[in-house]
Order: sequence, then C-alpha cells, then structure tokens
Amino acid sequence: MVLMLSNSDVDQLLTMKDTIAALDVLYGELGRAEAVTFPRQDLHVPLANEQDDLAAHYLKTMGGASPAFKVAALRFSSDVCTWPLFGNLRRRVKLPVQNGKWLGLILLFSSITGELLAIIQDGYLSRMRVGGTNGLAARHLARKDAARVGIFGSGWQAVTQLTALAEVRDIRHIKVFSPNRENREKFAKDMEALLKIPVQPVDSPNDAAEDVDIIVTATNSRQPFLPARLLSEGVHLSCLQRSEIEMEAYRRCDVLFINLNSPEHNYTSTLFSKREKELNMEVRDHPWTYDKFDWSVYPTLGQLVNGIVPGRIGDDQVTAFINNIGVAAQFAAVGAKVYELAKIKGLGQKLDSEMFLEDVHP
Amino acid sequence: MVLMLSNSDVDQLLTMKDTIAALDVLYGELGRAEAVTFPRQDLHVPLANEQDDLAAHYLKTMGGASPAFKVAALRFSSDVCTWPLFGNLRRRVKLPVQNGKWLGLILLFSSITGELLAIIQDGYLSRMRVGGTNGLAARHLARKDAARVGIFGSGWQAVTQLTALAEVRDIRHIKVFSPNRENREKFAKDMEALLKIPVQPVDSPNDAAEDVDIIVTATNSRQPFLPARLLSEGVHLSCLQRSEIEMEAYRRCDVLFINLNSPEHNYTSTLFSKREKELNMEVRDHPWTYDKFDWSVYPTLGQLVNGIVPGRIGDDQVTAFINNIGVAAQFAAVGAKVYELAKIKGLGQKLDSEMFLEDVHP
Repeated sequence: MVLMLSNSDVDQLLTMKDTIAALDVLYGELGRAEAVTFPRQDLHVPLANEQDDLAAHYLKTMGGASPAFKVAALRFSSDVCTWPLFGNLRRRVKLPVQNGKWLGLILLFSSITGELLAIIQDGYLSRMRVGGTNGLAARHLARKDAARVGIFGSGWQAVTQLTALAEVRDIRHIKVFSPNRENREKFAKDMEALLKIPVQPVDSPNDAAEDVDIIVTATNSRQPFLPARLLSEGVHLSCLQRSEIEMEAYRRCDVLFINLNSPEHNYTSTLFSKREKELNMEVRDHPWTYDKFDWSVYPTLGQLVNGIVPGRIGDDQVTAFINNIGVAAQFAAVGAKVYELAKIKGLGQKLDSEMFLEDVHP
Repeated sequence: MVLMLSNSDVDQLLTMKDTIAALDVLYGELGRAEAVTFPRQDLHVPLANEQDDLAAHYLKTMGGASPAFKVAALRFSSDVCTWPLFGNLRRRVKLPVQNGKWLGLILLFSSITGELLAIIQDGYLSRMRVGGTNGLAARHLARKDAARVGIFGSGWQAVTQLTALAEVRDIRHIKVFSPNRENREKFAKDMEALLKIPVQPVDSPNDAAEDVDIIVTATNSRQPFLPARLLSEGVHLSCLQRSEIEMEAYRRCDVLFINLNSPEHNYTSTLFSKREKELNMEVRDHPWTYDKFDWSVYPTLGQLVNGIVPGRIGDDQVTAFINNIGVAAQFAAVGAKVYELAKIKGLGQKLDSEMFLEDVHP
C-alpha cells in the first residue's frame, strides 16, 4: 500500500514540535556523517515558444536518507518558469502546471524493504522543515530567556518561522516589518490569533530590530537589507536565506552557524537561453551566490547539535543561524514522521503498490 | 491524466526501430549540447540488520531532458542490496522489494506545461534503450555489408543487442558463446525463433569471434575477457559494458566511440559499511572503474551522430562502441515515444492528475 498524502493531510498531522524533534535527530546524524543528502540536480531547458521566449522547463530533484528513521526521500518539482514584467522589473515566476496548480512531490521509501511508502505533496512539509530548522538552531543559540522577536517579512514562510520560535522559547512579544503596510497588518493579526502572543506591525526596519532578543529574516530578498548596526548585544539572528544580511552583519556575529556546506547544484544539466541567462545573472550575481562564497569556513547545524562546535557561551554574544541551502534529508526525517502519524490517524489516500512493482530488474 | 505504463505495455508498444529513431534524435541533441542529463545520484545507506550485516538500501536516481521531444524524465529505483555467497564467491544482489518484485520507475514530464505525463516501469524500456544505443552506434560504425555477428553473453540484455543489430544491418548469421552450455543453447533457439536468422551456439570465445563482422559483448563481467587478438580486420566491436575488453583490445581499435564522458556518480551521498566497502572494492577496483579511467580522450556517440567526429573510413578498420555509462536522457526520448504510442493505442492505466497537484508552491 502506498499512502498518498496531500498538503491538507500534512497540515492536520504535523506539529512544529514533532518537526523540530525529527530534525534534531536528523542533524545529529548529519553531524556524525550518518545520514546522506545529495545536492540539487536541476534539469532546465529553454522552450521553443513563440509567445514567450523566456519560458523554460525546470525539473528540480533532490534526495536524502536518514538511517535513524529508516527511510530515504526523493523530492522533485516540475515547473515552467518565465520572467514577466512587474512594472519595470522582470521577476522569475513558476507558472501553474495544470488547473492553476503546481507539481511538487516527496517520494518516501523504506530503507528496510526498499518499498515506496508514501507520496507526499511537498508544499506544507517544506515550509515546516524550513521553519523547524531555524527553530532547532534557535533552541541551541538564542538566549535561554529570549522572549521578544522582530521579524522581517510577512509571507508564507514567515508563519512557520514564528511557530518554530514559539516552540523553543517562551516568546512574549513579536514585532513584524514588511514594506507593504496591509500585508504586515494582516500578518500581525493572523499570527496573534494563531500563537496567542501580541504581534505588532511596525513601520521601519529599525523598529523591528530594536529591543528584541531574536531577529528573524524571512523574505525572498536577493539583496542584503539587514545592516550590522541593527544587531545589538545578545541578539540571535535567524535567517531564512543567505542573501538577506550584509557582509558587515556576518562579521558582527560572534557565533555563526550555517545549515550545510555541500555543493548546491549540479550545473551540468542546466541549459539557459541567452536572454534567460542574462536575467538569471542579474538576480544571482551578488556576493551571496552560493558558489562564489566560501561556506566551508562556517560550522554547521549538525556540528552544533552534536556539540562538536560550541554554540552561545555568553548572554552578550551575537549568535546567528543562516539557512544557507536546502537539505533534502529533511524530507526523509520529517516525511517519516508524517507517514507514521498518517498511519495512526488513518489519513491519506491508499494506492495499490502493485502498479509500481515490476517482475524484472534492469 | 497521468498514464501508468507497465513493462508489458512497453513491450507491446515499443519497437526497436522506434527506439533507435528516438535515440538518433536524442544523440543529435546531446552532441550539439541541446539536451541535458545529470549523473546518477545514489543514496546508499547501510542498514542496522542483525540477520544480514551486509544489507544496504540503495536509491538510485538519474534524470535527463530532451527539448526535441519536449519532455524531461526522472528515473529511480529503490533496492535493498546484499552480498550472499554463491559457492565461494560473494555476489551483489538486489532483493525484491515486495511480493517478489522490484521497484524501478520513470516519471515523464512535459517540458511545455510541466505536467506529469506518465509513470513507466523501467525494466523493458531500459533494456530497449541500451540495445538501441549500441544499435545506433553500429549503424554508423559497422561495415555496410556486415552480416555475421558473434555475441558473448546469453542473458536478458543480449536479446535487445541482437534485435538492434538486425534493425540496422542485414544480419544473416549469429554465433553465441556463454560459459553455460544450457543457457547458450536455449538463447540460440529463442533468438532464432524471434529474429528468423540462424543462431548457432558455440563452445569457445575463439569460435564466437572468428569470421564475423560484428562482435557483441553483452555480459555482466566485471573483468576484461576479450583479448585484442580476437579483433580481426574490418570488425565492429559493440560492448555493453566498459569492463569487458582488455586494454590491448581498446588500443587495437582504429575508431572508438563511447556513450558519454560526464561524471558517473555523485559519491557524496553514499555511505558504505566497512565490510560492504571492502566487497565493493573487490568488484570495482579494476582498471575500468569509471573514475580511474580518462574517458575524455574518446569521442562520443553524440559527436558521431552529428558528424563532428568521423566514424569508419575504410572497410579494413576495426571500429568500436563502448556503452561506458548510463545516460538518463535516453529515458526522456524513448519514454516520449512510448507515451505517444500508448495514447494512440489506448494502453495504460489512467490516474487522476489532481492528486499529484498542489495549490501552493514552496
């Protein structure tokens, strides 16, 4: 029996507590080199399309295995990407595949039998594993008495960043800044209802970073926006992306951990049309471009979780965690937890395994 | 609608003629760097298993895209591998996943819309693409009047090696050698019935290689067995694996093409237990181990198909094609052909696309 789990199933089943617990085990394994994960393999081909010469098909694949959870996961998404104009700016967007919807799945395999256990929609689980990873880092790095949070960004990913922090610290007050007033006000209202913690929208980056114990950046900015002067003594900085903070701010941190330092991509299987390449370069050609930056000098979350590299050693230190790269093994660990819960609660659509099996092997 | 295609569907739909035609288009693209393929990504983890301390889970993934066919393919297999004793020798085997069956699938995506078009069992298609690739090379390299074939090996892969040659040349006589008399006699009988060409089992390697125009090696030998002296003037040598022929025999060839020279594996995501590593080394530590050999000095089938590097220029030359590595883009091109035929013939099980789609994208 293969279990087909939708985003709605994942949403019902998976708590942030369980997510962080699963990631804690996984990062223990990763730090001891007992779990494996492979860099993203992108298949990207420009399309011959007269209507839109910037359209390209983009099949993204990544995989990882967690022996502790006795599973391996393969995650992929298939998108047609293009670059429509928003005002004067071109932005890269993923067009819906069918019926206004997207295609992103996690295949979960048993390491004991090899069988396909589940096919899981990747949206909700992905957001949980990102939030959970930053939450796990905060548990090790933020001051024990950290209670005040300032967050930059009011999008989809910002939600789980806050639920994760509320899981690992006794958060009493949250400030949110994002450029659009309407967005930040709605986000504040929604998060207050969800977390039962006061959430205050603020008008400036300075306001968001002032008098807080934890600063979270949860934007999709490809340009650094957080200057070093906003990092006050004792603060913990939690970044969703490597491109959000200025180089000076990196230097200001006494203790800085990253997610992983392995290659990010395989570029050999990516073809860009000339124009698309130019547009990609505009977006990607900043100092944080993965391959241009020496990530190997920073310790990893796996080393932190295993105590191989010490975390915060004083209340006045500035600590930071940069979620610098996606780690496919997260889908294995958190996917295993979702699968276990789905079986207990009887959720998910059952597919006959037989159709996926063959009586020969090449 | 996602079409689920079994090995039996593929067997009914796909002819060798169509396979070679699809591969011809693909290798045209590969030679012009217009198609993409990524090296195999293996997730391999040893299992904590008291009954069998050599068992490991092995999730193999590879992908490729063919803009000419407007598809991308992701192929994966999930196996539990172990090393049972056969007499005094340990051999690596893939245990069945469930119900005595194995799990290997190809996911085929449209490059135009991004949608998942089909899920195809990989066994039959894989065998066809291997045979077809060697057949395509033979069409370009064997003498036009080549009519006599000597084949080493009588297994599953040997079948499509012969059907492919019969497609590209007017084959009149075939000799087969394999160490087990019963196997070679049965194979000869079966192939004679299938191809309507006389197939003669022979007792020695020398017999198989004598007075033939094409020599095929289709074994799973990890040690070279074909010496240079068996390559007579004008012969075309077609190898299923890089490990089958001696170094001297490589040197004897006037014209030698390989499948592709890209990295074979990603080793960063492979964990071997100590004992398993030793056993792997015994098997793999020969001169043809992919990463120890300089494949970049040989021209590729893509260059041959595009006429970038000339093939045979005289009837007395010894030519060779070594299928040195798997190419995932083959699954895209041949998969697209199978999909097209399945739609025409109404074969395959229809699955609702909706369950694979999500209304968010991470």
